[in-house]
Amino acid sequence: MEIKKELGLTSAPHKLRTNYRNFPMVQKVVFGKGSFDQLGEILLPVRKNADAPVVFLVDDVFEGTGLIPRIPLIFNDQIIFISAEEEPKTDQVDALVRKIKSDFSEVPSGIVGIGGGTLLDLAKAVSIMLTNKGSSAQLQGWDLVEKPAIYHLGVPTLSGTGAEVSRTTVLMGPERKLGINSDYTTFDQVVLDPDLLVGVPKVQWFYTGMDCFIHCVESLNGTYLNAFSQSYGEKALELCKEVFLGDLNEETAREKLMMASWHGGMSIAYSQVGVAHAMSYGLSYVLGVKHGIGNCLVFAHLEEFYPEGVTLFREMLAKNDINLPQKVCSKLTEAEFDTMISISLSMEPLWENALGKNWLEKIDREKLRSIYEKI
Amino acid sequence: MEIKKELGLTSAPHKLRTNYRNFPMVQKVVFGKGSFDQLGEILLPVRKNADAPVVFLVDDVFEGTGLIPRIPLIFNDQIIFISAEEEPKTDQVDALVRKIKSDFSEVPSGIVGIGGGTLLDLAKAVSIMLTNKGSSAQLQGWDLVEKPAIYHLGVPTLSGTGAEVSRTTVLMGPERKLGINSDYTTFDQVVLDPDLLVGVPKVQWFYTGMDCFIHCVESLNGTYLNAFSQSYGEKALELCKEVFLGDLNEETAREKLMMASWHGGMSIAYSQVGVAHAMSYGLSYVLGVKHGIGNCLVFAHLEEFYPEGVTLFREMLAKNDINLPQKVCSKLTEAEFDTMISISLSMEPLWENALGKNWLEKIDREKLRSIYEKI
Repeated sequence: MEIKKELGLTSAPHKLRTNYRNFPMVQKVVFGKGSFDQLGEILLPVRKNADAPVVFLVDDVFEGTGLIPRIPLIFNDQIIFISAEEEPKTDQVDALVRKIKSDFSEVPSGIVGIGGGTLLDLAKAVSIMLTNKGSSAQLQGWDLVEKPAIYHLGVPTLSGTGAEVSRTTVLMGPERKLGINSDYTTFDQVVLDPDLLVGVPKVQWFYTGMDCFIHCVESLNGTYLNAFSQSYGEKALELCKEVFLGDLNEETAREKLMMASWHGGMSIAYSQVGVAHAMSYGLSYVLGVKHGIGNCLVFAHLEEFYPEGVTLFREMLAKNDINLPQKVCSKLTEAEFDTMISISLSMEPLWENALGKNWLEKIDREKLRSIYEKI
Repeated sequence: MEIKKELGLTSAPHKLRTNYRNFPMVQKVVFGKGSFDQLGEILLPVRKNADAPVVFLVDDVFEGTGLIPRIPLIFNDQIIFISAEEEPKTDQVDALVRKIKSDFSEVPSGIVGIGGGTLLDLAKAVSIMLTNKGSSAQLQGWDLVEKPAIYHLGVPTLSGTGAEVSRTTVLMGPERKLGINSDYTTFDQVVLDPDLLVGVPKVQWFYTGMDCFIHCVESLNGTYLNAFSQSYGEKALELCKEVFLGDLNEETAREKLMMASWHGGMSIAYSQVGVAHAMSYGLSYVLGVKHGIGNCLVFAHLEEFYPEGVTLFREMLAKNDINLPQKVCSKLTEAEFDTMISISLSMEPLWENALGKNWLEKIDREKLRSIYEKI
């Protein structure tokens, strides 16, 4: 149904031709403890010449750590440290592209993103904007990218967002938060080294993992799902349960969460999120709450929509000693509640996925208000 | 350990650098009932000019059926019908390449394989040999292909082999049955249309599905496994259980078996098969038994190695009313038994994966003889 919408088609799916999304996959992937050290070998055939550098965009939490000397710098390669404190922005992408263009006489051989969803999304966007004109804000949307990106490689150091495998890069633009969703966005190469998750703070580990878990609950309970995405979503959900409710040793937990994120990201191909994402967008807009925690704050109060998922989520909170912030919405004004509710209700495909075509009969402003008040 | 072997390395894995396989994935995939009709649209940007055709290699069971008019022929495109009665051969690949080169003035724009594992493997091999010199037999082995293949697209019409997603094409050569295993082997595009499984004979549906099931049991119980392949293998196994032991409607069963094969194929990346494959190679060599049924014949008697898997397999046989051929080895001569056992024991990595480094202490010729005699 989502795809029908995009094509502006209204007839029944089985009568349509050319109506399924042709999904690009990451071209190459390596998985293994310590595989980060293969980066040099992997990049060698990518290098065009000594003047065309590889630019590494690295989460600044790694500045001064033992990871940095392991980055295989040669020629005029450059490391740019970037804070992931705030979500990635179109301005930031454009500034990075200007800097790279002014620093080097040639287009880089490749962009490598090392970090969580923010760094991975920045690497994708920068690699696109090095070959396409204008501002990245102009390419936010569906299939607006004209030219292939330069080679880009992702190295996740946090797991749960699925950014390492998805065909989008979600950016905060001047007008809206929206993905540059295109076949050229997907990484050419991903390096999955579970050892890079060593040292992730417990709270961040949890909220990023819940990004995957909540996504899966929403998509598996949605009406847009097909068997392709279902199989990936089910596996990701299963792995999340093992990680957050099982008694795995830390090494196994890292490996499994990394794979949960990977499969969860793949499940996006033919699925859509639901009530938690619709409501957390409102929360983020008004309160600036970050994506991972915003989803959790909302999801905890969605037992009516996702009874099994919310039960599991509460068990995960308890088992992992996570205390969700309380009374987050207690001081909001009427106007702020109104904005939050309007933003949430504007996410039509998410509501339709969650509640069906007649979703407007099943939800109203009062209902959303009552849920937001609990948060 | 497998990878260590390939590199000739002997130190412990955690001390190694650059030791994990960098695995190529299918570049694009579309999934959905009726997605076959998107083939024309998908091939359009692939076409180089009116003289560079798309060549369709099609299982000859489809000759004269309704599928053929749906193949999007334009310009000088060609359909070549091929029997899948016998396993694909290097001679056959070389003959197809000669024919295509003599029929057309230009290198084709692409090769499309439509069929089961045999047709998919032929399409992969032909696309490689159109750009590489010599006979396909010379490229059997690991990473011997020098030049990228031409564009190749796979459309599975049987599910279970994983050929649609793997980086190999297994061919019977003049000296040995072996894969052309290379980064260039993997398909550029796969079209997964579950409706193409409509009408697969029940016995073929079962044996091809068991190719996936047995592969998963062997790899999940092997010593070579890592978390990447484990997650894919577990999901494939789960889907096989649903398909062959559940009470799904036919449409759902087709979708789930198609995804089981896909995930099973992906799980090959970092895993290895085991006792069933080692012994079925011997069986195939001496008796010419086909791969799918050969694995089943052996696997039924491997309860000692795979107790849970064999129990499930027997339930699947019963539930699906499949009667395995009996007394297959009853008339073999001593010399034939000897050959069969020797071929099987020569599959060292398979035995090591199944039984560990000291596998030679756990198995001997008498043991294999006693198992073969039961078949």
